[in-house]
Amino acid sequence: MEASEIQSLIAKSREALTFAYCPYSKFKVGAALLTKEGKVFTGCNVENVSYPLCICAERTAIVKAVSEGYREFKAMAIATELPDTFASPCGACRQVLLEFGSNYDIFLTKPDMTYVKMTPAELLPLGFTPNLLLEPPNQDSS
Amino acid sequence: MEASEIQSLIAKSREALTFAYCPYSKFKVGAALLTKEGKVFTGCNVENVSYPLCICAERTAIVKAVSEGYREFKAMAIATELPDTFASPCGACRQVLLEFGSNYDIFLTKPDMTYVKMTPAELLPLGFTPNLLLEPPNQDSS
Amino acid sequence: MEASEIQSLIAKSREALTFAYCPYSKFKVGAALLTKEGKVFTGCNVENVSYPLCICAERTAIVKAVSEGYREFKAMAIATELPDTFASPCGACRQVLLEFGSNYDIFLTKPDMTYVKMTPAELLPLGFTPNLLLEPPNQDSS
Amino acid sequence: MEASEIQSLIAKSREALTFAYCPYSKFKVGAALLTKEGKVFTGCNVENVSYPLCICAERTAIVKAVSEGYREFKAMAIATELPDTFASPCGACRQVLLEFGSNYDIFLTKPDMTYVKMTPAELLPLGFTPNLLLEPPNQDSS
Ligand SMILES: [Zn+2]
Ligand SMILES: [Zn+2]
Ligand SMILES: [Zn+2]
Ligand SMILES: [Zn+2]
Repeated sequence: MEASEIQSLIAKSREALTFAYCPYSKFKVGAALLTKEGKVFTGCNVENVSYPLCICAERTAIVKAVSEGYREFKAMAIATELPDTFASPCGACRQVLLEFGSNYDIFLTKPDMTYVKMTPAELLPLGFTPNLLLEPPNQDSS
Repeated sequence: MEASEIQSLIAKSREALTFAYCPYSKFKVGAALLTKEGKVFTGCNVENVSYPLCICAERTAIVKAVSEGYREFKAMAIATELPDTFASPCGACRQVLLEFGSNYDIFLTKPDMTYVKMTPAELLPLGFTPNLLLEPPNQDSS
Repeated sequence: MEASEIQSLIAKSREALTFAYCPYSKFKVGAALLTKEGKVFTGCNVENVSYPLCICAERTAIVKAVSEGYREFKAMAIATELPDTFASPCGACRQVLLEFGSNYDIFLTKPDMTYVKMTPAELLPLGFTPNLLLEPPNQDSS
Repeated sequence: MEASEIQSLIAKSREALTFAYCPYSKFKVGAALLTKEGKVFTGCNVENVSYPLCICAERTAIVKAVSEGYREFKAMAIATELPDTFASPCGACRQVLLEFGSNYDIFLTKPDMTYVKMTPAELLPLGFTPNLLLEPPNQDSS
């Protein structure tokens, strides 16, 4: 991706953050997901009084895309308001990112628009991958 | 709501179902959420090889709406392909529905477009409600 | 169940609450689950910095029992420190309670040991039940 | 840890797997968690008709320990029946493992008792750690 394209995606993740519904944590997170076709889906965290039912910004963006028919992704940018920490996806979101591919760009960003670039495979080393359950176990043996 | 408006919402939930990503359960679910402003957000289930990371159609619709700035809802229709069962939200989705209001219409539908109408409060009797954690416990005592 | 047996189960749910790991919500919850065989499993909430990965007291008690080979339940008591509110399970926990039976006693308690008694079926009206996915849909039609 | 101690923990994770409640995936997983004090807590997966409410073996073991007052861990072994794949925790479980420490042994095992050893920090590179929300953001700046 070109630098301007990356900065645009990060900017969209920062705008998305403003929609966060987070009365419990007060911790706003935004995400912007770029599909293979060039469409962008944004997400924010949506919390719940029962904490286990909170949903993260990254997964919000993913399910939005999938529910509109998009399943192939080129990149995601993730944003928080923490000034000195690159916004890092939680383990649950990493697993959902991996479901749709092991090798696309995930930008962990700071408010100053700097970033660290990772892939789903790097975020989840030795990851539990989709094919494990879809292939019958007994086909694994040689 | 008028009958035609309800039928239109149910139709949208049935269309949404076609986008379901459900390679594990093969069980397609769709939802259509009508906001106070008259906008409709659709959702489908988005599964994961790690089952706890699956997300339901109802919650997909809710987080889509919230991530676009909509938090007040008028109605939701839920659809599956089960011919003889009204599509019923799971407990997790009921809790998320309740977060945004106790008294709006939830249509549990069948493929023949018939439905049962419930409210979030009816779906979760004596529900664990948002204000429980937002209000300090010691203000409860008289 | 006899009154003394109920009070004993409630007392155990209150003791269980003291083990809660809840640095984020500061909201302690306890549960005590009585199996058909007369064994009691206790649970507390176990939170996580990523809120969606928090686990409730009720589900902690259930998975403990199942992991020791117990799947048939007679009753559960749920406790919090809220003085004036009967401790009510969230929707996610209601769904997990329903997985193991629709008709056993769930005691929603207050610190003064008073309670409201419900069943999983009452807590989740028109609930999404285990047999829906285990039976092939096309066997539903008559 | 000594080899015999590791083999014993793996053996316990394999026994735990037999209790799995997994009518939906038919995929049995077991876990055995060793606390700092030398106590072992076992876990299995406990599934639900609503897939998002499934709970993994690893988290079952963790919440059991915490609910009995144990929060410091020395090692966990994870087992499945896949003959040729080291049992790998999903992202959600990795996040829960990390909540209780970044540097203890996680044994990803095969039925033949061979294993790969990882730490929570290695399983979740650049992980979203507990102190992020517990420390006020504005204390991060130098
Ligand atoms: Zn997340
Ligand atoms: Zn649901
Ligand atoms: Zn709960
Ligand atoms: Zn897991």
